[in-house]
Amino acid sequence: MRVLGIDPGLRNMGWGIIDVAGSRMSHVANGTCHSEGKDLAARLLSLHEQLTDVIHRHEPDHAAIEQTFVNKDGVATLKLGQARGIALLVPAQAGLTIGEYAPNKVKKTIVGVGHAEKHQVEHMVKLQLPGVKIASADAADALAIAMCHAHYARASGSWEAALKKASA
Amino acid sequence: MRVLGIDPGLRNMGWGIIDVAGSRMSHVANGTCHSEGKDLAARLLSLHEQLTDVIHRHEPDHAAIEQTFVNKDGVATLKLGQARGIALLVPAQAGLTIGEYAPNKVKKTIVGVGHAEKHQVEHMVKLQLPGVKIASADAADALAIAMCHAHYARASGSWEAALKKASA
Repeated sequence: MRVLGIDPGLRNMGWGIIDVAGSRMSHVANGTCHSEGKDLAARLLSLHEQLTDVIHRHEPDHAAIEQTFVNKDGVATLKLGQARGIALLVPAQAGLTIGEYAPNKVKKTIVGVGHAEKHQVEHMVKLQLPGVKIASADAADALAIAMCHAHYARASGSWEAALKKASA
Repeated sequence: MRVLGIDPGLRNMGWGIIDVAGSRMSHVANGTCHSEGKDLAARLLSLHEQLTDVIHRHEPDHAAIEQTFVNKDGVATLKLGQARGIALLVPAQAGLTIGEYAPNKVKKTIVGVGHAEKHQVEHMVKLQLPGVKIASADAADALAIAMCHAHYARASGSWEAALKKASA
């Protein structure tokens, strides 16, 4: 099973892909989509094209996307929401099964605590995917999200059960 | 010039299309995209498909989209943001020129006051587009947004100037 993790963001959208076979995980690829364009619509289009290209090149079976932490900054939430719309749309267009995981669920699964720091997450990603070269902090988060999805699938005995737990 | 107005929303996305020739406006079509699907990704995909179909059928030149009013309800803002990402992406994919207008700018242009009620907006849309049958309140808003864009273009002497004013 090949899993694409996505860390949504309007400027930088991290992505990471792993292969999962039983209890074994291996790194496939990771990177960051940088949005380009003179206005918001052009930037969303740029993200859509880059993420579509990632899926075409690597053909994942599942996508796991970080749930967005809603804070009091409405403008930031709106921006992130618009980028997140694209992050959900592209895998849906490709017919992928999609799971959503809250940030603290990802951290708890990968590091063991829900309030882990970013560098701890990156450290654990590197430990579990030996030799991986990580493109950016956002790409590290994306790999962590993909790994979180794989852990849930293993713990619950099936990918379908993981998806149910993800949305619970 | 054919203008598509969009009133973004996750459950219901209003759209309305008008033709503009000099100072004359005429109604082309209007409707509402209802999102369907078992989860958020499926609903965004459904909106994307319906809005893409609207553009393919009616081939507008410009799109005008309502800017989102950010309130304190972060969850609602995030939902709307995700839908708005799709509303901006689809015209960008079709190569349309895109303008964004704040709700009070639309109301002030169409009704004369920025705090106009919904039914006043709908009344003015009907007055200026004789014989129009309006599919929903969201579709009425979408027609008003398209008309606002046309007004700005006329007042400023060009479509390009309107787009600059829209984002000012």
